[in-house]
Amino acid sequence: MKNSKDLPAAPEFVAGNGLLHRRALLASGAGLAASLTGYASRSPAHAAPLAVEPWMRDPTAAGLEPYGAPSRYESGVVRGGRNEPAGNPSPGTGSIRTPLHLLNGTITPNGLHHVRLHSGVPDIVPDRHRLLIHGLVERPLIYTLDALGKYPMESHPYFLECTGNSIELYAKEPLKAGVERLHGQISCAEWTGVRVATLLEEVGVKPEAKWILAEGADAAGMARSVPLAKIADDALIGLYQNGERLRPSNGYPMRLLLPGYQGTANIKYLRRIKLIKGPAYTRDETARYAITGPDGITTEFYLQFDAKSVITQPAPELALPGPGLYKLAGLAWSGRGRGIIKKVEGSADAGRSWAEAMITSPVMPKALVRFEMLWRWEGQPAILQSRATDETGYTQWTRNQMLAARGPAGNYMTNCIISWAVNERGELSNVYA
Amino acid sequence: MKNSKDLPAAPEFVAGNGLLHRRALLASGAGLAASLTGYASRSPAHAAPLAVEPWMRDPTAAGLEPYGAPSRYESGVVRGGRNEPAGNPSPGTGSIRTPLHLLNGTITPNGLHHVRLHSGVPDIVPDRHRLLIHGLVERPLIYTLDALGKYPMESHPYFLECTGNSIELYAKEPLKAGVERLHGQISCAEWTGVRVATLLEEVGVKPEAKWILAEGADAAGMARSVPLAKIADDALIGLYQNGERLRPSNGYPMRLLLPGYQGTANIKYLRRIKLIKGPAYTRDETARYAITGPDGITTEFYLQFDAKSVITQPAPELALPGPGLYKLAGLAWSGRGRGIIKKVEGSADAGRSWAEAMITSPVMPKALVRFEMLWRWEGQPAILQSRATDETGYTQWTRNQMLAARGPAGNYMTNCIISWAVNERGELSNVYA
Repeated sequence: MKNSKDLPAAPEFVAGNGLLHRRALLASGAGLAASLTGYASRSPAHAAPLAVEPWMRDPTAAGLEPYGAPSRYESGVVRGGRNEPAGNPSPGTGSIRTPLHLLNGTITPNGLHHVRLHSGVPDIVPDRHRLLIHGLVERPLIYTLDALGKYPMESHPYFLECTGNSIELYAKEPLKAGVERLHGQISCAEWTGVRVATLLEEVGVKPEAKWILAEGADAAGMARSVPLAKIADDALIGLYQNGERLRPSNGYPMRLLLPGYQGTANIKYLRRIKLIKGPAYTRDETARYAITGPDGITTEFYLQFDAKSVITQPAPELALPGPGLYKLAGLAWSGRGRGIIKKVEGSADAGRSWAEAMITSPVMPKALVRFEMLWRWEGQPAILQSRATDETGYTQWTRNQMLAARGPAGNYMTNCIISWAVNERGELSNVYA
Repeated sequence: MKNSKDLPAAPEFVAGNGLLHRRALLASGAGLAASLTGYASRSPAHAAPLAVEPWMRDPTAAGLEPYGAPSRYESGVVRGGRNEPAGNPSPGTGSIRTPLHLLNGTITPNGLHHVRLHSGVPDIVPDRHRLLIHGLVERPLIYTLDALGKYPMESHPYFLECTGNSIELYAKEPLKAGVERLHGQISCAEWTGVRVATLLEEVGVKPEAKWILAEGADAAGMARSVPLAKIADDALIGLYQNGERLRPSNGYPMRLLLPGYQGTANIKYLRRIKLIKGPAYTRDETARYAITGPDGITTEFYLQFDAKSVITQPAPELALPGPGLYKLAGLAWSGRGRGIIKKVEGSADAGRSWAEAMITSPVMPKALVRFEMLWRWEGQPAILQSRATDETGYTQWTRNQMLAARGPAGNYMTNCIISWAVNERGELSNVYA
């Protein structure tokens, strides 16, 4: 364990309770690098002869498998926070979350993408799947998967966040859970597909059409209304996820992608797009997945995620072994405007003062962005927060601001500032601050 | 099968033998979209009532697995072109390739990343693995995997290409094989890791050190020399691949990443970095992986990949079912300068005329870039080619230019223009043109 006496003499603190200027990450130098503390408390050791381990003598014949798998030593890196209704009245309903505290970078590997199922995964035979585009069109058409393959495509990294991610932050008392269970319904993949606009040109949209209804081929028959303007802007028929075909639980063989919009509107197993005059008011956009104000009035079709961020390391799953200089790391994203993150800040004193973080990944529209910053912890209680600002000038609001604007419970699209309390033993927990 | 009479009346041809202006991909319109032909010959059908398939009635309980897998209908999407020395004198030596013709986008899913093994995959216990930095340094240090986790990290999509990818193009006669076997030793992942420069600041590099020697912990003891200037520029200790820990065959638990440099220099299972005065001339940079001129003289340490591209759809694995309007698609990349692809062009007449392709993915430094273009095939023989230009102004050379500058066989770093011949039956093959 490090002693705070080992820390550099004059680090440049820029916010209360020990946050350093982001420059410190760049110009780390010998003194600073040697002072860093890990969540697991091993430090570099002075050199001694390296052991010749058994694996250096054993030229195995493994490694040329047709489809590879993670190391057997990484068997604990799996999706968690599995959540199904009590008594499971509806088979296949539930969710499983991305282990954000164990991952790094911005891309979520396909095997760890979060899943929200409303009625299981349909076992779709891809050659028999059909996409119908009809309603207020000149020429209703049916597309097979093969037919869609011949159209122009484009590729983008986009985040997908469940409409109900972080929903527990509307609860009166903070749920004692980790970042995976509370906030793990956010993932990011490179999606490749056909612009819906290309297909709409082909079917010919009638002037009175202003919305579309999208319907999935799962047993839940998920159906959602989307303004035509969003479709024309950047909606895709997603056909590939990180280079390969979509994973079954993420919509195989095709899904609607509405970059920056709430996850449940990105209809999986897409089988039908109907051009309509106004929204259809389906069950999944009225009884659920809508935002209700404190007056009980629902704001219809607020579909876009505003800026949000979360500290993923440390987190309740990862304790601080003792006082020292720590790297804080996390993810930020926004669906607002072009979805460009402009700035991420961190606070160690519950938002009284803020220090700008370093962005450590490419900044792409409507994609996850990674940030890091340095924090010197002296062993005192602290509240760690992050807040993202996007290029529209929107900054993440506090939980109190969110509650004042919305009803306290049964709500969605939670993007308030997230707070981790650090106690004197270095343990983290979900709190309201 | 489409008849060429269905094609739009006046497409805008910009290069010989049927290549269209890339604008056609954007302003597709009803006529053009309906004219596109797929490599599998299904087209959109006029609307009829959709069948209610059995999977729409069956709310399965599947889909919430801890670690997901591809659809069972995609079991053919696997790495291929497995290549091991005859008689396998050295267990675990060989390669397996990314199925470029079956993928889309720019990210390679980890399970399909190409692999080149010199002595199998060492079964490294991650907690016992050590990285030693020594030689001409002030303070030789040993790093554990946990210790590296506390350092600042950064994330980038980078391509990795085997030094021997496409090596068969040096052969006198064109090998009759597909894009996977010939060119499938190229992949791209988002890599996250610690800058080597950060660790070098900590150990303190002595002024006389100008190179490093990097050594792997596999039974082959792969070892390579790299100029210190490259290390200071952008070299990483790669710890995460598309968000999760490295796959065993790609270097678990850590590898050297030299963005844009030949794959074999990106030492897997990295155990040792030694600061040295000049290159070490190891077996793997003298007996192999070096470029030899026609005079038999070796060009030492030409490590950076220059611009390159390949058409992946169609390819010898994917035939044209008949005359029609086709989308050509492929990948481009460059390790030169900042590694930014500026332009990709296609030719249907063996390079006599060229049309600019549409870039359909983000353009990131030293990462794969995707391109598409439209081609009208009337059933005549054709030679399809692509060529990439990077922001340094470098354009891919022809095979003849490459052979004139290098010896004809036993060479590496093949980045000449790749030619697919199309015969009258719509079949593709690897040719020299």
